[in-house]
Amino acid sequence: MIDQSTICAISTAPGNGAIAIVRLSGAETLDISAKVFHPIKSKVLREQKANTVHFGTIQDGEEIIDEILLSIFKAPHSYTGEDSVEIACHGAPFIQQRILQVLLKNGARMARPGEYTQRAFLNGKMDLSQAEAVADLIASSSAAAHKVALQQMRGGFSNELAALRERLLNFISLVELELDFGEEDVEFADRTQLNNLVAEIRNLIQKLVDSFTLGNVIKNGVPVAIVGNTNVGKSTLLNALLNEDRAIVSDIAGTTRDVIEDTINLGGITFRFIDTAGIRTTQDRIESMGIERTYNKMKQAQVVLLLVDADRDMESINESIANVNKTIDRNTQHLIVCLNKIDLIANPQQIVNELKGLDNTDKLILIAAKQKQNIEVLINELLKSVNVGKINEQDVIVTNVRHFEALKNALGSIARVQDGIGNQIPTDFLAQDIRECLHFLGEITGDISTDEVLGNIFKNFCIGK
Amino acid sequence: MIDQSTICAISTAPGNGAIAIVRLSGAETLDISAKVFHPIKSKVLREQKANTVHFGTIQDGEEIIDEILLSIFKAPHSYTGEDSVEIACHGAPFIQQRILQVLLKNGARMARPGEYTQRAFLNGKMDLSQAEAVADLIASSSAAAHKVALQQMRGGFSNELAALRERLLNFISLVELELDFGEEDVEFADRTQLNNLVAEIRNLIQKLVDSFTLGNVIKNGVPVAIVGNTNVGKSTLLNALLNEDRAIVSDIAGTTRDVIEDTINLGGITFRFIDTAGIRTTQDRIESMGIERTYNKMKQAQVVLLLVDADRDMESINESIANVNKTIDRNTQHLIVCLNKIDLIANPQQIVNELKGLDNTDKLILIAAKQKQNIEVLINELLKSVNVGKINEQDVIVTNVRHFEALKNALGSIARVQDGIGNQIPTDFLAQDIRECLHFLGEITGDISTDEVLGNIFKNFCIGK
Repeated sequence: MIDQSTICAISTAPGNGAIAIVRLSGAETLDISAKVFHPIKSKVLREQKANTVHFGTIQDGEEIIDEILLSIFKAPHSYTGEDSVEIACHGAPFIQQRILQVLLKNGARMARPGEYTQRAFLNGKMDLSQAEAVADLIASSSAAAHKVALQQMRGGFSNELAALRERLLNFISLVELELDFGEEDVEFADRTQLNNLVAEIRNLIQKLVDSFTLGNVIKNGVPVAIVGNTNVGKSTLLNALLNEDRAIVSDIAGTTRDVIEDTINLGGITFRFIDTAGIRTTQDRIESMGIERTYNKMKQAQVVLLLVDADRDMESINESIANVNKTIDRNTQHLIVCLNKIDLIANPQQIVNELKGLDNTDKLILIAAKQKQNIEVLINELLKSVNVGKINEQDVIVTNVRHFEALKNALGSIARVQDGIGNQIPTDFLAQDIRECLHFLGEITGDISTDEVLGNIFKNFCIGK
Repeated sequence: MIDQSTICAISTAPGNGAIAIVRLSGAETLDISAKVFHPIKSKVLREQKANTVHFGTIQDGEEIIDEILLSIFKAPHSYTGEDSVEIACHGAPFIQQRILQVLLKNGARMARPGEYTQRAFLNGKMDLSQAEAVADLIASSSAAAHKVALQQMRGGFSNELAALRERLLNFISLVELELDFGEEDVEFADRTQLNNLVAEIRNLIQKLVDSFTLGNVIKNGVPVAIVGNTNVGKSTLLNALLNEDRAIVSDIAGTTRDVIEDTINLGGITFRFIDTAGIRTTQDRIESMGIERTYNKMKQAQVVLLLVDADRDMESINESIANVNKTIDRNTQHLIVCLNKIDLIANPQQIVNELKGLDNTDKLILIAAKQKQNIEVLINELLKSVNVGKINEQDVIVTNVRHFEALKNALGSIARVQDGIGNQIPTDFLAQDIRECLHFLGEITGDISTDEVLGNIFKNFCIGK
């Protein structure tokens, strides 16, 4: 049963703006609007055409609260699939609150977090993965996160799942045909063909599961541990990286610096720079604890960026590399060594020749952070370390942990099917695993869902979405 | 010459929201929109009806930036009086910036602060005082500020000025008739009648000038100095005051606490509580400096709220009052003495009887801040001290310093006219002063304005207004 009550919320960002939007949706939307909206001449709102905008005042009885624009949307052609209106008022928080109050007084109730989008899902305007993408889209703060969320919201991921589902249904129809004739021991599905089909499906699911590594990077950013002594110029380097990017949008008013200072967008990808203390061999207990913390932070990083001064003696440079070598896991982590302050060095190549302990997958970059020299090269290397080259419009990339878990479960089921065919297990066991696989895929799109699952998803939305 | 270029800006509050609005206005609005807006079927935007909403995508070439709603407004029936559109997009700052970029790329330019409202003024959609009221409305954070700004935006103040102007024009037409027949020395305007008329006009202007005291309070809040020792419970009192008010809106999500912690709305009026150190007679040089600062803060306050513990000895209570007496100016400042912690006292009336040094305009209130006892009485007293009782829907209240200055100048001119009639000065001098008075009133409505004046007004608006 879909809740039919009429809900209201402020849908624009909190704070002062020129305009704010209060959204009303549900069966009573037009009746409630008619009670509070006063055009110059009295109009019957129900008779107004859908997708039209009306100027007038919003009133609490005789008291005028504001001059507003009222946009009317009618079921099923609205975001929620219900009758809804958007009230564009002057953007003072005081006015927004007063409008909410008068709507509540006239029969609306406050929307719960994500309730507009939840209703859109329940009314069949989008599937569950698309609804989740709305939240991702609104939260997106980099070009890649934006692109992936938009693609998912517009149904790219759903189409991929639909294709998978169709293949599975094709498969199970063959298997079930065999079950119908079970006693006759016929094989309608050629086992070799079945094997090929199941391998193909497994391949598709595996591809989606694998995309989560990149998807997670896109959604949550790439953790980069900067290792280096305190005065090696870490903040100079971060500023140099920051400047490269900000130049693009600095002319546009309203651009805000990231709240977390060390989160920087480079080439459309968010990098989270984790500052660490330097690593030195030491007997000092307190310093050891600091180094312990550095090791732990380094372990969380996808990229370890070792920043060393090029004008230090070779021994101490090589010691820094040796210390990093003790911690880094080259199967999951990339090492980038930055030799900084190369402007102070007569012959940088000599240092390069004398470096020890670098693997041939490690990258070595010579920079001068203060002079912003070779920063571009470092950015390219950071981007290469997350394989960003491979994102394009058509790629479906899984960014959502819930989808990832469901896909992993689906992969387990399909792997059992494949093994089962190999081991010639009874056909009804095969069918059960295939149904399980379909079930897990259905969880993603919301074809199969519980109130609890929906509750968990939409509680993380903001009110007004 | 009105700038015809097409301008764009984000009009909703900065930050993440479910929806954001990007506004485009100017001659090329529909052409630029057509280049970036892609409905499912290609439509010619110019042929769409005004005040309609269209769903589609906004694109940078082939790349889709977002799914949006586009509202179309056509000249002269729009806020600016020009063709304009509002793009309702998903509220990620990243998306808002991308949309601005694509609009800029296709021929729009960034709007200057207040440029939409400036165009509305230049296109005759509102007068200058109404345009200024838009900014006040958006900034309004209390019921009274909201009411006064809304009334001014809707033309209440302009009507008052128009009435004044009509009376003045009536007056000057009589005077100028006399000038035309100057050599014949006739008096078309009976001097007694003239005198009555000019007295009435002066009265009207004086009333507007006087309203500024209240208007300033409404717009900028009432400064209240809280004087008392550090442990006398000042923050407990502020919290008690805060709670009384917040209860009204605390159920509505999105209500934000004021950034300046000690700004509290009470009964629709903003009070700015200025915390001061206690005042004691002291020899200590450093403490003297603190007391000096307290005196200076007290001088800026409209209300001085002396908070003393009721359980102290009478001598020290009376000393506190005596110290405040040295500073307070009872012509411009109100004194409210709060005896706190009366719950600890067996016989409060005895203290009241023994209090010394209170004027009969001073207020004495017995409270228990922690128990929230008598806080309502204190709030009423604070409201009475600013004469809030007198605001009602019809009252025109001047809140703007620029208007206040122009009205004071107009008052000076009309006073000279009145004196001139008394002193029987030549008619042409009278006419000159009346024209001057008209000039000053015209400055308020913008009938008379310079680019410099307009520049000063609109530069204080935000971008997007």
